[in-house]
Amino acid sequence: MNSERIQIPTLLAKVKTAQEAAALIEDGMVVGSSGFTRAGDSKAVLQALAERAQSNPLKITLLTGASLGHDTDGLLAESHALYKRMPFQSDNGLRSHINDGEVLFIDQHLGETAELLQAENIHPIDLAVIEVAMIRADGQLIPTTSVGNSATFVQQAKQLIIEVNMAVPTSIAGIHDIHIPERYPFRKPILIEKVDDRIGSIGIEFDPAKVVAVVFTNLSDSAATIAPPEAKTDAIAAHLIEFFEKEVHKGKLSYHLLPLQAGIGKVANAILQGFVNSPFEGLTMYSEVLQDSTFELIDAGKMDFASASSITVSKEWYQKLFINFERYKDKILLRPQNISNAAEVIRRLGVIAINTAIEFDIYGNVNSTHIYGTKMMNGIGGSGDFARNAYLSIFVCQAASKNDTISHVVPMVAHVDHTEHDVDILVTDFGLADLRGLAPRERAKVIIENCAHPDYREALLDYYTRALEKGGQTPHLLGEALSWHERLQKMGRMTSELERVASIQ
Amino acid sequence: MNSERIQIPTLLAKVKTAQEAAALIEDGMVVGSSGFTRAGDSKAVLQALAERAQSNPLKITLLTGASLGHDTDGLLAESHALYKRMPFQSDNGLRSHINDGEVLFIDQHLGETAELLQAENIHPIDLAVIEVAMIRADGQLIPTTSVGNSATFVQQAKQLIIEVNMAVPTSIAGIHDIHIPERYPFRKPILIEKVDDRIGSIGIEFDPAKVVAVVFTNLSDSAATIAPPEAKTDAIAAHLIEFFEKEVHKGKLSYHLLPLQAGIGKVANAILQGFVNSPFEGLTMYSEVLQDSTFELIDAGKMDFASASSITVSKEWYQKLFINFERYKDKILLRPQNISNAAEVIRRLGVIAINTAIEFDIYGNVNSTHIYGTKMMNGIGGSGDFARNAYLSIFVCQAASKNDTISHVVPMVAHVDHTEHDVDILVTDFGLADLRGLAPRERAKVIIENCAHPDYREALLDYYTRALEKGGQTPHLLGEALSWHERLQKMGRMTSELERVASIQ
Repeated sequence: MNSERIQIPTLLAKVKTAQEAAALIEDGMVVGSSGFTRAGDSKAVLQALAERAQSNPLKITLLTGASLGHDTDGLLAESHALYKRMPFQSDNGLRSHINDGEVLFIDQHLGETAELLQAENIHPIDLAVIEVAMIRADGQLIPTTSVGNSATFVQQAKQLIIEVNMAVPTSIAGIHDIHIPERYPFRKPILIEKVDDRIGSIGIEFDPAKVVAVVFTNLSDSAATIAPPEAKTDAIAAHLIEFFEKEVHKGKLSYHLLPLQAGIGKVANAILQGFVNSPFEGLTMYSEVLQDSTFELIDAGKMDFASASSITVSKEWYQKLFINFERYKDKILLRPQNISNAAEVIRRLGVIAINTAIEFDIYGNVNSTHIYGTKMMNGIGGSGDFARNAYLSIFVCQAASKNDTISHVVPMVAHVDHTEHDVDILVTDFGLADLRGLAPRERAKVIIENCAHPDYREALLDYYTRALEKGGQTPHLLGEALSWHERLQKMGRMTSELERVASIQ
Repeated sequence: MNSERIQIPTLLAKVKTAQEAAALIEDGMVVGSSGFTRAGDSKAVLQALAERAQSNPLKITLLTGASLGHDTDGLLAESHALYKRMPFQSDNGLRSHINDGEVLFIDQHLGETAELLQAENIHPIDLAVIEVAMIRADGQLIPTTSVGNSATFVQQAKQLIIEVNMAVPTSIAGIHDIHIPERYPFRKPILIEKVDDRIGSIGIEFDPAKVVAVVFTNLSDSAATIAPPEAKTDAIAAHLIEFFEKEVHKGKLSYHLLPLQAGIGKVANAILQGFVNSPFEGLTMYSEVLQDSTFELIDAGKMDFASASSITVSKEWYQKLFINFERYKDKILLRPQNISNAAEVIRRLGVIAINTAIEFDIYGNVNSTHIYGTKMMNGIGGSGDFARNAYLSIFVCQAASKNDTISHVVPMVAHVDHTEHDVDILVTDFGLADLRGLAPRERAKVIIENCAHPDYREALLDYYTRALEKGGQTPHLLGEALSWHERLQKMGRMTSELERVASIQ
């Protein structure tokens, strides 16, 4: 069994316990780890490191693909083992340590981390911890359910710790397409012209001499939490499906649409599920994450091919997937995240990008990351990679929440992740605003009328009307622009009544 | 002479006066015009249209490459002939009509306008007005000093008005490289791997049957205004040159650097001129605009090749250039702006992007466009196209202005064009902040210490220190964040003294 999973004999001698491997990580190191949206993450060594740090303090800088599963980020944060963390996280425990300022967090476009490492614009990786399904005799590591930044980490790290996960069948070999762009100034085009184009190898080439430990694990990925159907997400999905149908009727798109990208979470899942009973067919994805809905669309005969950087599914689908792996294997491809999120490929393929906003403002600027404009939620993820270069850049969120005491359509977002330049369509449960070809003053009216919760429309319109008196390309009342967030911070709610804030003007 | 300039005989019969041609433009039309940073713009027909609109009112939507010369934008605005304008302008007269709300202005990434037209995400062009040096027998239009969006306008317009500018020598033929990307879903890579790679034809293919008028002109482009050497811009340039030297000494870059992009204006010009007496050599540009400094660097033997979408030079250089055109002809190339500004090419080549900010905040977010966050200055131009995908994204501005009563480093920018994700280096006359690999809390200290004017450092640090007490990834005091801009709006100045604004908290 071991010699099937580890086909390079010298590496069998490097097999260690997770604790022994974790002991090789030194204080101050920059560690790169596999893991993207909780898929294919380190399941033993980083946990052992967190445990070790409790008795034997150390701090590392940790880079991953994206979020980790198994509470790893939280455990590391609780053990005070993190000095700096990038490019993404979604852990409750880590989040509070970030907002307390204990952990320095760099919120990065997911497509750029590997680029920054290669260009030496951030500190190089000292040691990488990479989950694999097997180590092939030809010197290739076969990743598991994600690729993330693993290829670049493996290439750059001086030391490698490899976790061989026995829970992932070796039949997974073949679904990865590993390509590392050339270094400046010798870069070549990324020659993907269709979502299923292969441009690389099935595994990550590595130098066995760099391996300092091999650790066996036998654990599934943390399952995606399944959100039950909900009226608001269904309404958002319905508005979007109706919009796509209209685009088809206008002759702008065919029923195959163009390759879809959908952010992670219940809204994206609901939208994709909305395609199951629709006239759309021959769909494709060029995305970051494959979720339950991707495989449901494949089963329904609606999805022809899906490319991403990870598979993040529910417990039920995780098992189903590997039992029937041959059914899906030739319909999916996992790529490094600097390829799945490459500006070049996104623009060339004409991706339709659907991402979730925390809030947006009356001019179409989007906040994806910061509560009250100050507290980090998860991070920008790949939303910026896709929104900037998409054929259509769509952002969705509920119009209001917490018994409608919070409006997600605001006068001015308290933090900007995506500027109005990069936002084509906004959708809430109340409706869809098509902003294409509209100037800011036109956008304001359409957004308030179509997307805002009715309880807040009057107040938004009142703000806009009074701002208009002061003129400008993007009319605002500076003394009042962030007052809705101030009320939220102070009183836990925005308000539906017009409460003019004492302005210094 | 006419038959050298117009080599398709049937078109000789279409020669009209500017007034006759302007009469063909109808109320409500969407008009596309050549012109990019005042180069290669319409010099007769749009002016005649402005004149006509005074007695015979009409309103059009006008798309260009970028800004126009000869006060054309202002004349059209004064005549109330503009309903909507995109993607850029820099005209004093038009600016006030935009901020009054009379003219709807869409501030667009310059690399995206042609993409939006091709994808039918904005209204198609009805009629195009294109300046050319000649109409070739083989059915190609030879542009003059810019390409801009002309190729896409010509392809899409139902009617064409061609201005043949006798002031531009026909020897200009050969410096253009015209390539129009394929339509979705059949797009191919843009195969530029070096700044001097040619991928298209020397002219714009067109259908002679679409031509409704040919108008002769004999006028130079509006000259770039030459800013005299100034202590502040020289200081900014010196900080940057010093930074580049350090990167070379660290082994990260060679003395050839990587292809440079520099925004238009005196700061960019000063920086490029800074290379003349420096150890750098074998430089290249992959930019939007070629300014005086480009040709000075060619003359100094420092610049090997420069690619852009236009040539915008001083009166002196305009003459010099065409007299000695053979000296420069094989060292420059003009491309459509969706190629000069293509994300794909910028990332592949590893462009070093240097753009001007109006202001930036303590976390590195940049405002490039809006005074007080509300009034449009010029537009985002290509700064976003380059900043997002550059190898290094650099923004420069003076630390303070108007006798230092306005700080250009602020607690929170009042409008965001470039988020902190896309900003690597900030430079003012006081110093340079290298933000690579820094989290927001680290950025704040470096930006305040290195870039802020000394008069404002204490107040910025005080704001940051008090914001820190509230915690968060990006600490802010919402009631105070925009107060510096409120004071500016109200009193015409920010302040160096700590004046806590009455907060509602």
